[in-house]
Amino acid sequence: MVKAVIMAGGRGERFWPQSRIAIPKQLLPIVSEKSMLQETLARLSPLVRAKDVLVVTRSDLAKEVGRQLPELPAENIIQEPMGRNTAACIGLAAVSIEAREPDAIMICLPADHVIGEVRGAGTRDNKRFLEVLRVASKIARQRDSLVTIGIKPTRPETGYGYIEIGSKCKTQNAKCRIYKVKQFVEKPDKERSGEFVKAGRYFWNSGIFIWRTSVILGAMKEYMPELFAGLEKMRKALGTPEESRAIIEVYDSLESVSIDYGVMEKANDVLVTEGDFLWDDVGNWQASERILLKDGQGNVCRGETYKLDTNDCIIVSDKGLVAALGVSNLIVVRTPDVTLVCPKARAKEVKELVRRLAEDAKLRKYIE
Amino acid sequence: MVKAVIMAGGRGERFWPQSRIAIPKQLLPIVSEKSMLQETLARLSPLVRAKDVLVVTRSDLAKEVGRQLPELPAENIIQEPMGRNTAACIGLAAVSIEAREPDAIMICLPADHVIGEVRGAGTRDNKRFLEVLRVASKIARQRDSLVTIGIKPTRPETGYGYIEIGSKCKTQNAKCRIYKVKQFVEKPDKERSGEFVKAGRYFWNSGIFIWRTSVILGAMKEYMPELFAGLEKMRKALGTPEESRAIIEVYDSLESVSIDYGVMEKANDVLVTEGDFLWDDVGNWQASERILLKDGQGNVCRGETYKLDTNDCIIVSDKGLVAALGVSNLIVVRTPDVTLVCPKARAKEVKELVRRLAEDAKLRKYIE
Repeated sequence: MVKAVIMAGGRGERFWPQSRIAIPKQLLPIVSEKSMLQETLARLSPLVRAKDVLVVTRSDLAKEVGRQLPELPAENIIQEPMGRNTAACIGLAAVSIEAREPDAIMICLPADHVIGEVRGAGTRDNKRFLEVLRVASKIARQRDSLVTIGIKPTRPETGYGYIEIGSKCKTQNAKCRIYKVKQFVEKPDKERSGEFVKAGRYFWNSGIFIWRTSVILGAMKEYMPELFAGLEKMRKALGTPEESRAIIEVYDSLESVSIDYGVMEKANDVLVTEGDFLWDDVGNWQASERILLKDGQGNVCRGETYKLDTNDCIIVSDKGLVAALGVSNLIVVRTPDVTLVCPKARAKEVKELVRRLAEDAKLRKYIE
Repeated sequence: MVKAVIMAGGRGERFWPQSRIAIPKQLLPIVSEKSMLQETLARLSPLVRAKDVLVVTRSDLAKEVGRQLPELPAENIIQEPMGRNTAACIGLAAVSIEAREPDAIMICLPADHVIGEVRGAGTRDNKRFLEVLRVASKIARQRDSLVTIGIKPTRPETGYGYIEIGSKCKTQNAKCRIYKVKQFVEKPDKERSGEFVKAGRYFWNSGIFIWRTSVILGAMKEYMPELFAGLEKMRKALGTPEESRAIIEVYDSLESVSIDYGVMEKANDVLVTEGDFLWDDVGNWQASERILLKDGQGNVCRGETYKLDTNDCIIVSDKGLVAALGVSNLIVVRTPDVTLVCPKARAKEVKELVRRLAEDAKLRKYIE
């Protein structure tokens, strides 16, 4: 049995001001008319039925998640009382799945990625993605391995982590190459990222993982014993009146650690399947350029906009008109209560801007 | 008797998107909490009582003008059915004044200029302006001349017309120098504007005029006989049930000509009083920099704004937050329905942008 876990607890700060604490990036229609979460569920549908999909999200987002995914059974929305990074999120999902169906294969994937080529009218071709996912699930089942998907890099990118591949896996598949992971590599600087692309032995770390629940829980027991102990506490409370109190208590005490750092970098038998499809983590506004179509002047626009002598800009309006005159390489985002203006090259710093607004009692409302 | 005529029919297109057809620049609080029209009336108050001030404006703006100036008798708001430039506006005002009080001195001045030094807390010192205006009124009465105020230029400015002064006027006044006008000069290019400042014989054309009603009407009879004929028609209808129909008919047939071009450049006996006070025609957003106080990074801001590594910008928010990250020399204006982004150096082109929006059936609403 294959279960999918969509991790939908992110804050999406770099997509401010559209992305807000109350309705972050994954719940917004950033790349199409559907929200990124809806896109993620739709993308999985040929492989995993809605009843086998779990969404892990923050409690305060659960209602909106349910509204956006009416096909999902209510009990498939797992609420985290607070964000504690991907290790805790995946651990909670694993024990929840085990409680329902012991030893299933679980596919873990973020709610806010874009996958597949644009196929006109906003739809995307996910065929290759699903094929790779099928291979990865098969391998995970056959070999009891931790499996990840590595994306063949198409450009030097300093915003992603990388996976250095080792030897080919003995178990191979005609549809997709599988390697042992030599090591996980932190986000590189510009020079190294260029070398990575040339070398051919480095993949982007997609943040998509496939494994048996028993295998990841075993790895957590070994490499993250404190988390594992917390998971045991939560497991015992699942389905009892104590459930939500146990989850709050455990979460409150957990360290915020990524699955990459907590498990993947430490485990021995980690495999990577080569993902040769379009993939983007849509990390900030600049990503829009890679995902959406440009006009003749290199602008990417959404909503009501008017451009005069304006090129290579990203212009988004949720409501009302954005008029740009004589500007280049600028991001302009207009929402009902905020306008953001920033050069494309500084898109990553929007996170810092949001952090500062959070500290300002008068302006905090604009990030909430 | 001194009457003042405030010309408040402008379109203020270069202050879009705050300035709209329905509520243009002169009716907006561009430089203080009061509208520019309210500022203009307040500035005149030590010299001319409200009952002696006429405001000439477009019919569709008359109601708002009345709302903003409750101290003005309703009959002092003169409605133009359509804009026909300053010659027609001044002509209509002159016959209206003559009908009430023959041969008064009339001071004509635009509703959307800034005058006087900032004196803290947003108030301005208009003492010198009023002094010069008193001298000009006296000269206009003594000599039956067309009198204008020329502003001593403080920078090379290509956005203003200039007045070249001739010999000193024989009638002098201890408080203010008075010259004969040698010629009116169209807006110069950059090089010539620099020469004008150095030469010392060129003043900015302030668009402020002082004369007896009989004198300007006489000059119109001589240099603009068609306009004068129209004025005669309107004069006869004033105070009769035919008044508004006569004004509409005449206006519809009038050419749109400025008083500068139609009369001042052609007349012989034109005098200019030297205006050595701060004056700005607030022609476009860039003018804000000269009028409002800058922060430590050279930004001029109004409304709710947040700046991170941002300098030398003009940032205005009518509603909601404008957040600027890493930008320089940019104009950003946010209104309830529009955001404008444009480099300061291209502020003048906002007029062209507005012209284009006017031609777009879907976007026209954003200028109305």
